[in-house]
Amino acid sequence: MEQYKRLPRHIGIIPDGNRRWAQSKGLNKEDGYRYGIEPGFELYRECIKLGIEEMTFYGFTQDNTKRPAVQTKAFQKACVDSVMQLTGQDANLLVVGNTGSPLFPRELLPFTKRVTIGKGLTNINFLVNYGWDWDLSHFRKASQNMGKDNFMAGIASSDISRIDLIIRWGGRRRLSGFLPVQSIYADFYIIDDMWPEFKIQHLYDALDWYQTQDITRGG
Amino acid sequence: MEQYKRLPRHIGIIPDGNRRWAQSKGLNKEDGYRYGIEPGFELYRECIKLGIEEMTFYGFTQDNTKRPAVQTKAFQKACVDSVMQLTGQDANLLVVGNTGSPLFPRELLPFTKRVTIGKGLTNINFLVNYGWDWDLSHFRKASQNMGKDNFMAGIASSDISRIDLIIRWGGRRRLSGFLPVQSIYADFYIIDDMWPEFKIQHLYDALDWYQTQDITRGG
Repeated sequence: MEQYKRLPRHIGIIPDGNRRWAQSKGLNKEDGYRYGIEPGFELYRECIKLGIEEMTFYGFTQDNTKRPAVQTKAFQKACVDSVMQLTGQDANLLVVGNTGSPLFPRELLPFTKRVTIGKGLTNINFLVNYGWDWDLSHFRKASQNMGKDNFMAGIASSDISRIDLIIRWGGRRRLSGFLPVQSIYADFYIIDDMWPEFKIQHLYDALDWYQTQDITRGG
Repeated sequence: MEQYKRLPRHIGIIPDGNRRWAQSKGLNKEDGYRYGIEPGFELYRECIKLGIEEMTFYGFTQDNTKRPAVQTKAFQKACVDSVMQLTGQDANLLVVGNTGSPLFPRELLPFTKRVTIGKGLTNINFLVNYGWDWDLSHFRKASQNMGKDNFMAGIASSDISRIDLIIRWGGRRRLSGFLPVQSIYADFYIIDDMWPEFKIQHLYDALDWYQTQDITRGG
Protein backbone atom coordinates (compact mmCIF):
# COMPACT_ATOMS: atom_id res chain seq x y z
CA MET A 1 0.00 0.00 0.00
CA GLU A 2 1.23 3.46 -0.84
CA GLN A 3 2.29 5.98 1.76
CA TYR A 4 0.47 9.31 1.77
CA LYS A 5 1.84 12.48 3.25
CA ARG A 6 -1.71 13.73 3.74
CA LEU A 7 -4.90 11.65 3.85
CA PRO A 8 -8.46 12.94 4.03
CA ARG A 9 -10.09 12.40 7.39
CA HIS A 10 -13.55 12.16 5.84
CA ILE A 11 -14.39 11.05 2.28
CA GLY A 12 -17.75 11.69 0.61
CA ILE A 13 -18.80 9.17 -2.05
CA ILE A 14 -21.18 10.00 -4.92
CA PRO A 15 -21.68 6.62 -6.63
CA ASP A 16 -23.25 7.85 -9.87
CA GLY A 17 -23.73 6.13 -13.20
CA ASN A 18 -25.56 2.93 -12.23
CA ARG A 19 -28.31 3.49 -14.78
CA ARG A 20 -26.01 4.53 -17.60
CA TRP A 21 -23.81 1.51 -16.92
CA ALA A 22 -26.82 -0.85 -16.97
CA GLN A 23 -27.97 0.55 -20.31
CA SER A 24 -24.50 0.16 -21.79
CA LYS A 25 -24.66 -3.53 -20.81
CA GLY A 26 -28.09 -4.03 -22.35
CA LEU A 27 -29.76 -4.26 -18.94
CA ASN A 28 -32.76 -2.33 -17.67
CA LYS A 29 -31.82 0.92 -15.95
CA GLU A 30 -33.00 -0.30 -12.55
CA ASP A 31 -30.75 -3.34 -12.75
CA GLY A 32 -27.70 -1.10 -12.31
CA TYR A 33 -28.18 -0.46 -8.62
CA ARG A 34 -27.50 -3.95 -7.34
CA TYR A 35 -24.15 -3.88 -9.14
CA GLY A 36 -23.32 -0.89 -6.97
CA ILE A 37 -23.33 -2.76 -3.66
CA GLU A 38 -20.11 -4.76 -3.92
CA PRO A 39 -18.05 -1.73 -5.07
CA GLY A 40 -19.12 0.02 -1.88
CA PHE A 41 -17.70 -2.81 0.22
CA GLU A 42 -14.44 -2.91 -1.69
CA LEU A 43 -14.07 0.81 -1.13
CA TYR A 44 -15.00 0.48 2.55
CA ARG A 45 -12.42 -2.26 3.14
CA GLU A 46 -9.66 -0.31 1.44
CA CYS A 47 -10.47 2.83 3.44
CA ILE A 48 -10.33 0.84 6.68
CA LYS A 49 -6.86 -0.38 5.73
CA LEU A 50 -5.77 3.18 5.06
CA GLY A 51 -7.17 4.45 8.36
CA ILE A 52 -9.81 6.77 6.89
CA GLU A 53 -11.91 7.89 9.87
CA GLU A 54 -15.23 8.69 8.21
CA MET A 55 -17.05 7.93 4.95
CA THR A 56 -20.40 9.19 3.71
CA PHE A 57 -22.24 7.45 0.86
CA TYR A 58 -24.85 9.29 -1.19
CA GLY A 59 -27.63 6.69 -1.20
CA PHE A 60 -30.68 8.36 -2.68
CA THR A 61 -32.41 11.71 -2.46
CA GLN A 62 -35.96 12.93 -2.28
CA ASP A 63 -35.41 14.21 -5.85
CA ASN A 64 -34.46 10.69 -6.99
CA THR A 65 -37.81 9.35 -5.82
CA LYS A 66 -39.49 11.19 -8.72
CA ARG A 67 -38.08 8.44 -10.95
CA PRO A 68 -40.19 5.46 -12.14
CA ALA A 69 -41.32 3.23 -9.25
CA VAL A 70 -39.31 0.25 -10.48
CA GLN A 71 -36.13 2.34 -10.19
CA THR A 72 -37.10 3.80 -6.82
CA LYS A 73 -37.67 0.30 -5.45
CA ALA A 74 -34.34 -0.86 -6.85
CA PHE A 75 -32.24 1.87 -5.24
CA GLN A 76 -34.15 1.59 -1.96
CA LYS A 77 -33.32 -2.12 -1.91
CA ALA A 78 -29.66 -1.47 -2.76
CA CYS A 79 -29.41 0.97 0.17
CA VAL A 80 -31.05 -1.41 2.62
CA ASP A 81 -28.87 -4.30 1.46
CA SER A 82 -25.73 -2.20 1.77
CA VAL A 83 -26.48 -1.06 5.31
CA MET A 84 -27.53 -4.57 6.37
CA GLN A 85 -24.33 -6.07 5.00
CA LEU A 86 -22.34 -3.50 6.96
CA THR A 87 -23.94 -4.70 10.16
CA GLY A 88 -21.61 -7.68 9.76
CA GLN A 89 -18.57 -5.40 9.76
CA ASP A 90 -16.83 -3.21 12.32
CA ALA A 91 -18.29 0.24 11.85
CA ASN A 92 -20.20 3.08 13.47
CA LEU A 93 -23.25 3.22 11.24
CA LEU A 94 -25.50 6.22 10.73
CA VAL A 95 -28.36 6.75 8.28
CA VAL A 96 -29.47 10.34 7.64
CA GLY A 97 -32.61 11.24 5.72
CA ASN A 98 -36.24 12.21 5.93
CA THR A 99 -37.89 9.42 7.92
CA GLY A 100 -41.24 11.20 7.83
CA SER A 101 -41.98 9.88 4.34
CA PRO A 102 -43.08 6.42 3.18
CA LEU A 103 -40.08 6.47 0.83
CA PHE A 104 -37.72 6.03 3.76
CA PRO A 105 -37.14 2.27 4.16
CA ARG A 106 -38.48 1.14 7.57
CA GLU A 107 -35.64 -1.37 7.97
CA LEU A 108 -33.19 1.50 8.32
CA LEU A 109 -34.95 3.32 11.18
CA PRO A 110 -32.71 1.72 13.85
CA PHE A 111 -29.70 3.38 12.24
CA THR A 112 -30.93 6.97 12.36
CA LYS A 113 -28.97 7.23 15.61
CA ARG A 114 -25.36 6.12 15.23
CA VAL A 115 -24.96 2.40 15.97
CA THR A 116 -21.56 0.98 16.90
CA ILE A 117 -20.94 -2.48 15.50
CA GLY A 118 -18.00 -4.61 16.56
CA LYS A 119 -14.83 -2.56 16.93
CA GLY A 120 -16.45 0.46 15.26
CA LEU A 121 -13.35 1.02 13.15
CA THR A 122 -14.76 3.92 11.19
CA ASN A 123 -17.83 6.14 10.90
CA ILE A 124 -19.91 5.12 7.89
CA ASN A 125 -22.82 7.37 6.98
CA PHE A 126 -25.54 6.77 4.39
CA LEU A 127 -27.79 9.48 3.03
CA VAL A 128 -31.17 7.84 2.46
CA ASN A 129 -34.19 9.81 1.24
CA TYR A 130 -32.04 12.85 1.86
CA GLY A 131 -32.78 16.38 0.65
CA TRP A 132 -30.49 19.39 1.00
CA ASP A 133 -33.47 21.64 1.72
CA TRP A 134 -34.85 19.13 4.24
CA ASP A 135 -31.40 19.10 5.90
CA LEU A 136 -30.96 22.87 6.11
CA SER A 137 -34.57 23.55 7.05
CA HIS A 138 -33.86 22.13 10.51
CA PHE A 139 -31.73 25.12 11.15
CA ARG A 140 -33.13 27.74 13.49
CA LYS A 141 -31.77 31.24 13.51
CA ALA A 142 -29.83 31.70 16.71
CA SER A 143 -27.47 34.55 15.98
CA GLN A 144 -26.06 36.33 12.95
CA ASN A 145 -22.56 35.56 14.15
CA MET A 146 -23.07 32.13 15.57
CA GLY A 147 -19.89 30.71 14.06
CA LYS A 148 -19.55 27.88 11.58
CA ASP A 149 -19.42 25.07 14.12
CA ASN A 150 -22.59 26.20 15.84
CA PHE A 151 -24.24 26.55 12.46
CA MET A 152 -23.49 22.91 11.68
CA ALA A 153 -24.95 21.88 15.01
CA GLY A 154 -28.38 23.07 13.90
CA ILE A 155 -28.92 21.09 10.70
CA ALA A 156 -30.46 17.63 10.31
CA SER A 157 -27.12 16.09 9.28
CA SER A 158 -25.25 17.55 12.25
CA ASP A 159 -23.81 14.15 13.21
CA ILE A 160 -21.90 14.08 9.93
CA SER A 161 -18.62 15.99 10.12
CA ARG A 162 -17.00 18.29 7.57
CA ILE A 163 -15.86 16.47 4.42
CA ASP A 164 -12.30 16.76 3.09
CA LEU A 165 -12.57 14.91 -0.21
CA ILE A 166 -15.58 14.10 -2.38
CA ILE A 167 -15.16 11.41 -5.03
CA ARG A 168 -17.84 11.24 -7.69
CA TRP A 169 -18.13 8.43 -10.23
CA GLY A 170 -19.90 8.74 -13.59
CA GLY A 171 -18.24 11.90 -14.90
CA ARG A 172 -20.67 14.59 -13.70
CA ARG A 173 -19.01 17.56 -12.03
CA ARG A 174 -21.62 18.74 -9.57
CA LEU A 175 -22.73 18.18 -5.99
CA SER A 176 -26.37 17.38 -6.84
CA GLY A 177 -27.44 18.44 -3.37
CA PHE A 178 -24.84 16.40 -1.46
CA LEU A 179 -24.44 17.81 2.10
CA PRO A 180 -24.02 21.49 1.18
CA VAL A 181 -22.68 22.56 4.57
CA GLN A 182 -20.19 19.74 5.07
CA SER A 183 -18.99 20.11 1.45
CA ILE A 184 -18.13 23.83 1.71
CA TYR A 185 -14.33 23.29 1.70
CA ALA A 186 -14.20 19.78 0.24
CA ASP A 187 -11.91 18.98 -2.67
CA PHE A 188 -13.82 17.45 -5.53
CA TYR A 189 -12.43 14.55 -7.58
CA ILE A 190 -14.28 13.19 -10.60
CA ILE A 191 -13.95 9.70 -12.06
CA ASP A 192 -15.34 9.23 -15.55
CA ASP A 193 -15.98 5.49 -15.10
CA MET A 194 -19.43 4.52 -13.87
CA TRP A 195 -19.81 3.40 -10.25
CA PRO A 196 -20.37 -0.33 -11.08
CA GLU A 197 -16.98 -0.17 -12.85
CA PHE A 198 -15.28 0.73 -9.56
CA LYS A 199 -11.61 -0.22 -9.22
CA ILE A 200 -9.40 0.24 -6.16
CA GLN A 201 -7.12 2.29 -8.40
CA HIS A 202 -9.84 4.98 -8.57
CA LEU A 203 -9.43 5.55 -4.84
CA TYR A 204 -5.67 5.74 -5.17
CA ASP A 205 -5.93 8.17 -8.07
CA ALA A 206 -8.12 10.40 -5.90
CA LEU A 207 -5.77 10.17 -2.90
CA ASP A 208 -2.70 10.83 -5.05
CA TRP A 209 -4.36 14.00 -6.30
CA TYR A 210 -5.69 15.01 -2.89
CA GLN A 211 -2.29 15.07 -1.24
CA THR A 212 -1.08 17.64 -3.79
CA GLN A 213 -3.82 20.12 -2.80
CA ASP A 214 -3.34 22.84 -0.21
CA ILE A 215 -5.68 23.56 2.68
CA THR A 216 -6.38 27.23 3.30
CA ARG A 217 -10.09 27.51 4.12
CA GLY A 218 -9.89 31.01 2.69
CA GLY A 219 -7.08 32.20 4.98
CA MET B 1 -18.91 33.72 -32.23
CA GLU B 2 -19.80 30.08 -31.78
CA GLN B 3 -23.36 28.83 -31.60
CA TYR B 4 -24.34 26.91 -28.48
CA LYS B 5 -27.21 24.49 -28.29
CA ARG B 6 -27.46 25.15 -24.56
CA LEU B 7 -26.09 28.13 -22.63
CA PRO B 8 -26.07 28.62 -18.87
CA ARG B 9 -28.54 31.21 -17.67
CA HIS B 10 -26.39 32.11 -14.67
CA ILE B 11 -22.59 31.74 -14.40
CA GLY B 12 -20.69 31.84 -11.10
CA ILE B 13 -17.09 33.07 -11.28
CA ILE B 14 -14.39 32.09 -8.76
CA PRO B 15 -11.41 34.22 -9.81
CA ASP B 16 -8.71 32.43 -7.85
CA GLY B 17 -4.93 32.50 -8.17
CA ASN B 18 -4.16 36.23 -7.99
CA ARG B 19 -1.55 35.75 -5.26
CA ARG B 20 0.10 32.73 -6.83
CA TRP B 21 0.28 34.56 -10.14
CA ALA B 22 1.85 37.64 -8.51
CA GLN B 23 4.50 35.50 -6.84
CA SER B 24 5.30 33.75 -10.10
CA LYS B 25 5.94 37.19 -11.61
CA GLY B 26 8.21 38.30 -8.77
CA LEU B 27 5.56 40.68 -7.40
CA ASN B 28 4.23 40.91 -3.87
CA LYS B 29 1.20 38.70 -3.25
CA GLU B 30 -1.13 41.67 -2.76
CA ASP B 31 -0.16 43.10 -6.16
CA GLY B 32 -2.04 40.29 -7.87
CA TYR B 33 -5.51 41.60 -7.17
CA ARG B 34 -5.39 44.68 -9.36
CA TYR B 35 -4.46 42.49 -12.31
CA GLY B 36 -7.76 40.73 -11.72
CA ILE B 37 -9.98 43.71 -12.58
CA GLU B 38 -9.57 43.89 -16.35
CA PRO B 39 -10.15 40.12 -16.83
CA GLY B 40 -13.51 40.59 -15.11
CA PHE B 41 -14.52 43.21 -17.65
CA GLU B 42 -13.41 41.13 -20.59
CA LEU B 43 -15.48 38.26 -19.27
CA TYR B 44 -18.46 40.55 -18.59
CA ARG B 45 -18.39 41.96 -22.14
CA GLU B 46 -18.20 38.53 -23.72
CA CYS B 47 -21.09 37.23 -21.60
CA ILE B 48 -23.21 40.22 -22.63
CA LYS B 49 -22.55 39.37 -26.29
CA LEU B 50 -23.60 35.78 -25.65
CA GLY B 51 -26.78 36.83 -23.86
CA ILE B 52 -25.89 35.38 -20.44
CA GLU B 53 -28.59 36.66 -18.09
CA GLU B 54 -26.78 36.63 -14.75
CA MET B 55 -23.21 36.50 -13.45
CA THR B 56 -21.94 36.28 -9.87
CA PHE B 57 -18.33 37.14 -9.00
CA TYR B 58 -16.73 35.81 -5.83
CA GLY B 59 -15.14 39.00 -4.51
CA PHE B 60 -13.88 38.23 -1.02
CA THR B 61 -15.09 36.36 2.02
CA GLN B 62 -15.05 36.90 5.74
CA ASP B 63 -12.47 34.07 5.85
CA ASN B 64 -10.23 35.97 3.42
CA THR B 65 -10.07 38.93 5.79
CA LYS B 66 -7.90 36.85 8.15
CA ARG B 67 -5.07 37.48 5.68
CA PRO B 68 -2.41 40.16 6.23
CA ALA B 69 -3.86 43.71 6.22
CA VAL B 70 -1.96 44.70 3.09
CA GLN B 71 -3.68 41.88 1.18
CA THR B 72 -7.09 42.61 2.69
CA LYS B 73 -6.80 46.27 1.63
CA ALA B 74 -5.73 45.22 -1.86
CA PHE B 75 -8.68 42.90 -2.52
CA GLN B 76 -11.13 45.34 -0.97
CA LYS B 77 -9.85 48.00 -3.37
CA ALA B 78 -10.05 45.63 -6.35
CA CYS B 79 -13.70 44.90 -5.50
CA VAL B 80 -14.61 48.55 -5.10
CA ASP B 81 -12.84 49.46 -8.34
CA SER B 82 -14.58 46.64 -10.21
CA VAL B 83 -18.05 47.64 -9.04
CA MET B 84 -17.38 51.33 -9.68
CA GLN B 85 -16.19 50.62 -13.22
CA LEU B 86 -19.36 48.65 -13.84
CA THR B 87 -21.43 51.70 -12.97
CA GLY B 88 -20.32 52.96 -16.38
CA GLN B 89 -21.85 49.89 -18.08
CA ASP B 90 -25.36 48.59 -18.68
CA ALA B 91 -26.05 46.22 -15.82
CA ASN B 92 -28.25 45.46 -12.85
CA LEU B 93 -25.71 45.57 -10.06
CA LEU B 94 -26.01 43.86 -6.69
CA VAL B 95 -23.48 43.48 -3.88
CA VAL B 96 -24.15 40.77 -1.26
CA GLY B 97 -22.17 40.48 1.95
CA ASN B 98 -22.04 41.26 5.63
CA THR B 99 -22.37 45.05 5.85
CA GLY B 100 -22.35 44.93 9.64
CA SER B 101 -18.57 44.72 9.73
CA PRO B 102 -15.91 47.42 9.15
CA LEU B 103 -14.41 45.11 6.52
CA PHE B 104 -17.33 45.82 4.18
CA PRO B 105 -16.28 48.76 1.97
CA ARG B 106 -18.60 51.74 2.66
CA GLU B 107 -18.51 52.76 -1.00
CA LEU B 108 -20.47 49.64 -1.92
CA LEU B 109 -23.40 50.18 0.46
CA PRO B 110 -25.59 51.76 -2.28
CA PHE B 111 -25.41 48.50 -4.22
CA THR B 112 -26.72 46.20 -1.51
CA LYS B 113 -30.12 46.64 -3.16
CA ARG B 114 -30.04 45.90 -6.88
CA VAL B 115 -29.29 49.04 -8.91
CA THR B 116 -30.21 49.20 -12.60
CA ILE B 117 -27.69 51.10 -14.69
CA GLY B 118 -28.35 52.09 -18.29
CA LYS B 119 -30.13 49.36 -20.19
CA GLY B 120 -29.54 46.84 -17.39
CA LEU B 121 -28.48 44.21 -19.90
CA THR B 122 -27.61 41.57 -17.33
CA ASN B 123 -27.66 40.91 -13.59
CA ILE B 124 -24.14 41.22 -12.15
CA ASN B 125 -23.66 40.17 -8.55
CA PHE B 126 -20.58 40.59 -6.37
CA LEU B 127 -20.00 38.73 -3.13
CA VAL B 128 -18.17 41.15 -0.84
CA ASN B 129 -17.28 40.25 2.75
CA TYR B 130 -19.48 37.22 2.18
CA GLY B 131 -19.67 34.16 4.43
CA TRP B 132 -21.63 30.99 3.74
CA ASP B 133 -22.61 30.74 7.40
CA TRP B 134 -23.59 34.42 7.50
CA ASP B 135 -25.72 33.79 4.39
CA LEU B 136 -27.51 30.69 5.67
CA SER B 137 -27.92 32.03 9.21
CA HIS B 138 -30.59 34.43 7.92
CA PHE B 139 -32.78 31.45 7.34
CA ARG B 140 -35.64 30.99 9.76
CA LYS B 141 -37.34 27.67 10.12
CA ALA B 142 -40.76 27.94 8.56
CA SER B 143 -41.73 24.40 7.72
CA GLN B 144 -40.02 21.05 7.30
CA ASN B 145 -41.44 20.78 3.82
CA MET B 146 -41.26 24.36 2.71
CA GLY B 147 -39.96 23.55 -0.77
CA LYS B 148 -36.67 24.54 -2.33
CA ASP B 149 -37.83 27.88 -3.70
CA ASN B 150 -39.19 29.03 -0.38
CA PHE B 151 -36.00 27.90 1.27
CA MET B 152 -33.97 30.13 -1.01
CA ALA B 153 -36.24 33.05 -0.19
CA GLY B 154 -35.07 32.99 3.41
CA ILE B 155 -31.31 33.34 3.03
CA ALA B 156 -29.27 36.56 2.87
CA SER B 157 -28.37 35.98 -0.80
CA SER B 158 -31.98 35.40 -1.84
CA ASP B 159 -31.77 37.97 -4.66
CA ILE B 160 -29.18 35.78 -6.39
CA SER B 161 -30.75 33.01 -8.47
CA ARG B 162 -29.71 29.38 -8.87
CA ILE B 163 -26.39 28.96 -10.67
CA ASP B 164 -26.02 26.70 -13.73
CA LEU B 165 -22.26 26.80 -14.30
CA ILE B 166 -19.42 27.70 -11.94
CA ILE B 167 -16.05 28.48 -13.51
CA ARG B 168 -13.06 28.52 -11.18
CA TRP B 169 -9.61 29.73 -12.16
CA GLY B 170 -6.38 28.70 -10.42
CA GLY B 171 -6.81 24.92 -10.48
CA ARG B 172 -8.49 24.30 -7.12
CA ARG B 173 -11.52 21.99 -7.26
CA ARG B 174 -13.66 23.20 -4.42
CA LEU B 175 -16.43 25.70 -3.70
CA SER B 176 -14.63 27.44 -0.81
CA GLY B 177 -17.95 28.58 0.59
CA PHE B 178 -19.36 30.01 -2.65
CA LEU B 179 -23.17 30.31 -2.39
CA PRO B 180 -23.92 26.80 -1.12
CA VAL B 181 -27.64 26.92 -1.85
CA GLN B 182 -27.45 28.39 -5.34
CA SER B 183 -24.60 25.99 -6.23
CA ILE B 184 -26.49 22.81 -5.34
CA TYR B 185 -27.01 21.69 -8.97
CA ALA B 186 -24.30 23.78 -10.66
CA ASP B 187 -21.84 22.19 -13.05
CA PHE B 188 -18.29 22.90 -12.00
CA TYR B 189 -15.57 23.74 -14.53
CA ILE B 190 -11.95 24.23 -13.46
CA ILE B 191 -9.31 26.22 -15.33
CA ASP B 192 -5.72 25.60 -14.28
CA ASP B 193 -4.51 29.04 -15.37
CA MET B 194 -4.54 31.75 -12.73
CA TRP B 195 -7.24 34.41 -12.92
CA PRO B 196 -4.90 37.23 -14.09
CA GLU B 197 -4.04 34.97 -17.04
CA PHE B 198 -7.68 35.04 -18.18
CA LYS B 199 -8.32 34.45 -21.89
CA ILE B 200 -11.67 34.58 -23.67
CA GLN B 201 -10.93 31.02 -24.77
CA HIS B 202 -11.33 29.89 -21.14
CA LEU B 203 -14.98 30.94 -21.27
CA TYR B 204 -15.51 29.12 -24.55
CA ASP B 205 -13.84 25.99 -23.21
CA ALA B 206 -16.25 26.07 -20.27
CA LEU B 207 -19.28 26.65 -22.48
CA ASP B 208 -18.24 23.91 -24.91
CA TRP B 209 -18.06 21.51 -22.00
CA TYR B 210 -21.26 22.76 -20.37
CA GLN B 211 -23.43 22.08 -23.42
CA THR B 212 -22.41 18.41 -23.33
CA GLN B 213 -23.75 17.97 -19.77
CA ASP B 214 -27.25 16.78 -19.00
CA ILE B 215 -29.67 18.45 -16.60
CA THR B 216 -31.57 16.08 -14.33
CA ARG B 217 -31.68 17.71 -10.89
CA GLY B 218 -31.85 14.19 -9.50
CA GLY B 219 -34.95 13.16 -11.50
